[in-house]
Amino acid sequence: MLTTGRSEEFRTEQGLEKAAGVLRDERFDGVIAIGGDGTMHGLHALKQHWKGQLIGIPGSIDNDIYGTEYSIGFDTAVNNALQAIDKIRDTAESFQRVFLVEVMGRHSGAIALHVGIASGASAILIPETPTDLKKIAQKIISGREAGKSSSIIIVAEGEETGGASVVGEKLSEMVGEKCRVSVLGYIQRGGNPTRYDRILATRLGVRAVEGMIAGLDGVMLGEQACEIVETPFEKTWSVKKELDKWMLSLMDELAT
Amino acid sequence: MLTTGRSEEFRTEQGLEKAAGVLRDERFDGVIAIGGDGTMHGLHALKQHWKGQLIGIPGSIDNDIYGTEYSIGFDTAVNNALQAIDKIRDTAESFQRVFLVEVMGRHSGAIALHVGIASGASAILIPETPTDLKKIAQKIISGREAGKSSSIIIVAEGEETGGASVVGEKLSEMVGEKCRVSVLGYIQRGGNPTRYDRILATRLGVRAVEGMIAGLDGVMLGEQACEIVETPFEKTWSVKKELDKWMLSLMDELAT
Amino acid sequence: MLTTGRSEEFRTEQGLEKAAGVLRDERFDGVIAIGGDGTMHGLHALKQHWKGQLIGIPGSIDNDIYGTEYSIGFDTAVNNALQAIDKIRDTAESFQRVFLVEVMGRHSGAIALHVGIASGASAILIPETPTDLKKIAQKIISGREAGKSSSIIIVAEGEETGGASVVGEKLSEMVGEKCRVSVLGYIQRGGNPTRYDRILATRLGVRAVEGMIAGLDGVMLGEQACEIVETPFEKTWSVKKELDKWMLSLMDELAT
Amino acid sequence: MLTTGRSEEFRTEQGLEKAAGVLRDERFDGVIAIGGDGTMHGLHALKQHWKGQLIGIPGSIDNDIYGTEYSIGFDTAVNNALQAIDKIRDTAESFQRVFLVEVMGRHSGAIALHVGIASGASAILIPETPTDLKKIAQKIISGREAGKSSSIIIVAEGEETGGASVVGEKLSEMVGEKCRVSVLGYIQRGGNPTRYDRILATRLGVRAVEGMIAGLDGVMLGEQACEIVETPFEKTWSVKKELDKWMLSLMDELAT
Repeated sequence: MLTTGRSEEFRTEQGLEKAAGVLRDERFDGVIAIGGDGTMHGLHALKQHWKGQLIGIPGSIDNDIYGTEYSIGFDTAVNNALQAIDKIRDTAESFQRVFLVEVMGRHSGAIALHVGIASGASAILIPETPTDLKKIAQKIISGREAGKSSSIIIVAEGEETGGASVVGEKLSEMVGEKCRVSVLGYIQRGGNPTRYDRILATRLGVRAVEGMIAGLDGVMLGEQACEIVETPFEKTWSVKKELDKWMLSLMDELAT
Repeated sequence: MLTTGRSEEFRTEQGLEKAAGVLRDERFDGVIAIGGDGTMHGLHALKQHWKGQLIGIPGSIDNDIYGTEYSIGFDTAVNNALQAIDKIRDTAESFQRVFLVEVMGRHSGAIALHVGIASGASAILIPETPTDLKKIAQKIISGREAGKSSSIIIVAEGEETGGASVVGEKLSEMVGEKCRVSVLGYIQRGGNPTRYDRILATRLGVRAVEGMIAGLDGVMLGEQACEIVETPFEKTWSVKKELDKWMLSLMDELAT
Repeated sequence: MLTTGRSEEFRTEQGLEKAAGVLRDERFDGVIAIGGDGTMHGLHALKQHWKGQLIGIPGSIDNDIYGTEYSIGFDTAVNNALQAIDKIRDTAESFQRVFLVEVMGRHSGAIALHVGIASGASAILIPETPTDLKKIAQKIISGREAGKSSSIIIVAEGEETGGASVVGEKLSEMVGEKCRVSVLGYIQRGGNPTRYDRILATRLGVRAVEGMIAGLDGVMLGEQACEIVETPFEKTWSVKKELDKWMLSLMDELAT
Repeated sequence: MLTTGRSEEFRTEQGLEKAAGVLRDERFDGVIAIGGDGTMHGLHALKQHWKGQLIGIPGSIDNDIYGTEYSIGFDTAVNNALQAIDKIRDTAESFQRVFLVEVMGRHSGAIALHVGIASGASAILIPETPTDLKKIAQKIISGREAGKSSSIIIVAEGEETGGASVVGEKLSEMVGEKCRVSVLGYIQRGGNPTRYDRILATRLGVRAVEGMIAGLDGVMLGEQACEIVETPFEKTWSVKKELDKWMLSLMDELAT
């Protein structure tokens, strides 16, 4: 059982040289690494110091890596968030209140978008698109007048959205009612993985081993439209991963 | 909140005529129905009695309907089964035993295949392919000799596999050790739906409403390689839905 | 991390002597053992072969050990069963059917009694009291006539009740409708323990260590009316643990 | 299905008189109310305006009402928190970090105390007793030096403890490492209730109905050492409910 660590030393030329030395001494033929864009940067940098095969597998709950539709961990994280929101909804409906729920995704609205649509949220705030809080406030007020007892609004963490606390203060003033805030935080990680993540991890893992045997080198494996695709390391972070257009348009309709 | 019912009357010409009469009287323009192959048969039959638009959406935990990669409910059912197996594994490892876990799928091994691969089972028995129990027994015996403490084997219910009880008796004799049997049954249904099922249901539901407005008629909607596709009702049951070839080959490797 | 094992050898005089020899050679001062009545028998037998201190802690999902209100594992097992039944209830209500759910407890109705009352079952069948199936059938029929859509009946496993399959066949005939059967089995074990079990285990564990230091010997620790009590090993299996009278009377009222 | 509401009007003499009028007009014989100290205050005040029978049942996740060992909802809330912490522990152990987890209980450390002991926390901060942060910091530092990879510290919300964010900032400075903060918030409410809460609610509910028939009036029912006890309304808030002494002493030992 290996644990996870972020190594500052690995970001330096000396650190990379040291790692390459270990791989040479131990006669490794190749390395398969699972992780986010930090991992892909690391593999890319290691390439300059070592001649062995390097294959990346996308693992990140944020789902912000270019070259794969989903990264390992995203489905589990969204399901963790949904389970928490199912509990919060019990409280929201009993007490007839507005709840702002902050989910992970500092620079990507992917978690917020999926959580929001899957939980039937009244509105979703993500870093990729500007938010018209007045429109949301107006929707809450007219909903309240029409007898709607409670609302759940999903907010992606981070500077661009302001986070649920800041949004909550503004919105409370606009709707004349104290909105409740819940920051899901670390409970989105951890727990037993879902079918989707286990099958995706198995598929990418098997392909990585097959690729290793076949001489594959310098790419991250991913899944696109049910096919396994290969993406050079640099592209995984230099090309911006777009959010699903259909989900974005549905998000816009929610806010209307 | 509508509940679910199987109507014998609806399977007769008089029943269909009665239903068509209600739809005419109430001036319905169309019907969107969610269900398995019984539902698609029903929609097809109703077509002969009523001129309105009919659109089907695949909902079945068995995932055995042609025209869609996944049907609504399958992901939730497999995740329910995985959660149960995570608990059974605690017992299997503590007591160092062989467990046979029976999952749903009388005529389709889709649940068993996903559950088995996602749970790292030692073997998977499905109705689609014959099983060499001797090979499985041999694998358990050599695993035991090599120090492997416990094994979990997934069995799809039904006549073709024999079900977990029958398989368990045969296997117990072959390996000289009482194998334990667990039939998951109805706990695979129910519970809060997963992200995957909620997003799939939202996507198909929105498309069905858009299709209704645009005049769509006589087809079931499904998702294939991330695209929405339309399949005439008859094809959904007359064409056999194949299991994923890659997963089948992985299943064969497990048993080696 | 120690695993669990049932040792046939330990049931023989030679096995006990061998164990005592190991304890003497390794200079153990005492042993604290967690388990059910098999464990208490073992401690009692070991006493004849070894002079060290022996303390027992009741751990059994069946909750059938005299000398403690609850044994470690019982609360977790009942909660596991309740979570499964919450899922089965979704199906029962959708399809408007009678479900028989079999829970663990071959010789004790404790799990069935708690599960049945906590899940609002229509009836509970336990080994300790005879069951009048006709009365239950009558109740289902009159409930059905009064518009009650579904019923859940809890059956303790074992010969005395017949188990859910046997009861299901008889009842199906009596009520003229196929009753569904679900055997929860091993999913009642395993999973993360509950608050109740963790606090009980902590309390008994701390007391056992304190007792060991203070010279305590030859007893099982238990909790009765919020106090820690000590019971000699023989009494833990020779005195029959009674079911809660209030819960039994409530069970009788359910069946009326 | 009734929802929950806090009524400002009910806190005035006119509001109480209006409520009493409704009860008189509808010819109620009595009212059984479930809730926390606000509910008991309300019942006490209503007594001055209405002659019918009034019985209270303690329902509060904070478990801060005098007259019962546990109030309905507490066990479910603690189990919800434990499930969240089991997920956070996965992250804490992977990343080898210190986590501060804030649980509910503005004026009572009951949730924090149970969650902390049941989750094996390194320290617990509650409003009832002063906390020596330096001792906790010292323990983390010496644990780190001894190879302990991660720590979880439970903090009760509120002014007395400062809450997890404030504590986190101070502690991060003391241990020279950024401590992570997780505020569990509303996910502690909601979800399916546990065995303990369902059995407690059944027991108190049955007793309340029996009491109503027998003429019981002016008291809250509770459970103490497995017996049902009656407490006059005023005493439920005027007498301070003490925390379990044994758990407090265990908490002190943790911090050493």
